[in-house]
Amino acid sequence: MILVLNAGSSSLRCALFRPGEPVPAWRAHVSDIGKAPRVSIDGEADDGAGPPARDHAGVARWLFARLPAPPSVAGHRVVHGGLRYAAPARVDAEVVGALERLVPLAPAHQPQALACLREVEATWPGLPQVACFDTAFHRSQDRLAQLYPLPRDLLDAGLVRFGFHGLSYAHVARSYPQGRVLAAHLGHGASLCAIRDGRSVATTMGFTTLDGLMMGTRSGAVDPGLVLHLIRERGLSPGAVSTLLNERSGLLGVSGISDDVRDLEASDDPSAREALDLFVYRIVREAGSLVAALGGLDVLVFTGGIGEHSARVRAGVCAGLVFAGIALDEAANRAGRASLGTPATRVLVRIAPADEEREIALSVADLVDEAAPSRMRLDVPQGG
Amino acid sequence: MILVLNAGSSSLRCALFRPGEPVPAWRAHVSDIGKAPRVSIDGEADDGAGPPARDHAGVARWLFARLPAPPSVAGHRVVHGGLRYAAPARVDAEVVGALERLVPLAPAHQPQALACLREVEATWPGLPQVACFDTAFHRSQDRLAQLYPLPRDLLDAGLVRFGFHGLSYAHVARSYPQGRVLAAHLGHGASLCAIRDGRSVATTMGFTTLDGLMMGTRSGAVDPGLVLHLIRERGLSPGAVSTLLNERSGLLGVSGISDDVRDLEASDDPSAREALDLFVYRIVREAGSLVAALGGLDVLVFTGGIGEHSARVRAGVCAGLVFAGIALDEAANRAGRASLGTPATRVLVRIAPADEEREIALSVADLVDEAAPSRMRLDVPQGG
Repeated sequence: MILVLNAGSSSLRCALFRPGEPVPAWRAHVSDIGKAPRVSIDGEADDGAGPPARDHAGVARWLFARLPAPPSVAGHRVVHGGLRYAAPARVDAEVVGALERLVPLAPAHQPQALACLREVEATWPGLPQVACFDTAFHRSQDRLAQLYPLPRDLLDAGLVRFGFHGLSYAHVARSYPQGRVLAAHLGHGASLCAIRDGRSVATTMGFTTLDGLMMGTRSGAVDPGLVLHLIRERGLSPGAVSTLLNERSGLLGVSGISDDVRDLEASDDPSAREALDLFVYRIVREAGSLVAALGGLDVLVFTGGIGEHSARVRAGVCAGLVFAGIALDEAANRAGRASLGTPATRVLVRIAPADEEREIALSVADLVDEAAPSRMRLDVPQGG
Repeated sequence: MILVLNAGSSSLRCALFRPGEPVPAWRAHVSDIGKAPRVSIDGEADDGAGPPARDHAGVARWLFARLPAPPSVAGHRVVHGGLRYAAPARVDAEVVGALERLVPLAPAHQPQALACLREVEATWPGLPQVACFDTAFHRSQDRLAQLYPLPRDLLDAGLVRFGFHGLSYAHVARSYPQGRVLAAHLGHGASLCAIRDGRSVATTMGFTTLDGLMMGTRSGAVDPGLVLHLIRERGLSPGAVSTLLNERSGLLGVSGISDDVRDLEASDDPSAREALDLFVYRIVREAGSLVAALGGLDVLVFTGGIGEHSARVRAGVCAGLVFAGIALDEAANRAGRASLGTPATRVLVRIAPADEEREIALSVADLVDEAAPSRMRLDVPQGG
């Protein structure tokens, strides 16, 4: 059994997969960690006594006691693998040290993943563990796609485009291993990825998760001169600007109403409409940039909560990409079918449910020698 | 005679046009103002006693004494017209006040233009003057193209995409008044503009001239989170980050050699090649974004020093835009001919010399009632 742990900033998803089976044998989701944790198990809210703990380690320990079967290996989502990890990595003391050094680049996520790694080791000493990185999928990009036009010493010091949402994109790439694929992971965090023949070519997020698309509460890309203006001319502290751009902008900031597309679609306030229109406009603009990186388009894939469920957003994006050969079947889009293109065009338009836990389970299975789960194959490339 | 003044941060171009004539009757260029000014008049270096003054006002006064004929009207390039000016404006005390209030948004350019306005009034009291804005051409954009995904109060306070190089783009639009035009103004500062039926639809520069493309010494767009990281984690002051991104990045920063494409093309250093490749790559990516804004492409126009003179940059950009229907005639490109497309494609590829002074003269002529130059037509839209 493969134990999968997907730690968010204030949530933890946990699943137990039998190798080769697409649906987990058991799964749990704990949200609002740090406040009053809420639990659902196998999709049902758990109204019993929830986890007493207020941190990820305690919540993980509480969940481990409820697993229906013991794991033989554990796989973790780890947001940041830096430039070093271009593939899932077997966890050892050196890997843990490297991940700890990356905490400053992902302070809201990396410590939670590390806490889960440690809790697994404490519960099942010696259990093989695998770290699966949100950044790793993008390490296949050409160097030019990873560079900012900065002084060379800063590039050498690692100020590059890492890219994120890599587990989601790797999962898309499993289904579309050939051709020029534009994948749109649209959730509360949102990004696009250009995938050619199964490998990331370019992506919209960059050094941090703030770059690129407009998101629920994040601005996405804004003029760096505007950031400096807010500090130098308007007197905001750098911390206040960070809060402004990460927590008060995006759909929430433009609408003044909500960071949730569903709320905005239900509103008839012009600000809600403008926020949705800008969200779509920014996707179309960044999609054009990635179509240029791909040199054309064969497949457009929507994933993530908004990508899977908002027919309005999908329709707006497709209307803006007619130039790239997209033709949307309006009825299929409204019905949310998996395939949305018309026969009139060769460009496929698809919805693919995001499934990071499944991707982690598959990555772990790829890495583990099934005949002897405690041994890992050591010939897997792990970047440089 | 129309006197045209184009003030840069440390330069001043001055020209005298007869209405309706494309080439100025007289022109001068003073560079290195503030250090040891160098003068050329009608294209010839002036080795005589140069202007004694060290500022734009003094240099302007020195030039005015050398004009071969007195002007009947003066036109100025003014970098920033804010949201108010969507067309050239007759200068009066109210306009001057509005332009002074915009100095913080263009501190390296706006004061010089204001100094020239005042010097004209001091030399020829009552002479009609017209301000022509680098931002004005972009005010025709849809609101969505001008918005950053920021909290609404900041958008209402004017934190929007102004866009720049508008005089250069307006000049391109005079030659290509129909269709979907992508104009690339590639000089030491560089930007792209999407023009549909003669009107700006979107552009790469934003709130400041730092946004968008990689430039000679400017980074162009970088993750706003990276800006905050430099301040919060690496301990740089906001002023140091501004210097870093505006003066030490771009071609200069990546190459470590020069901010000038000619120097880099002449170098066989791998860093020089990488800087040029990244410069082209960033243009292709942003061009894709603007092709999406246009919904396709009919004309690609190169202008500015690099656009007019670098066959290598043009070839690289065109190679990246094959998906948009571009096909380059390699021989025509190497020869720097005005028309570079092959007959195999309907998308035109052109070189158009940048001529901001000519655009200013044309704008002034459009505005002035020729029968009575001291009266201006008042029915010209001036934005809101």
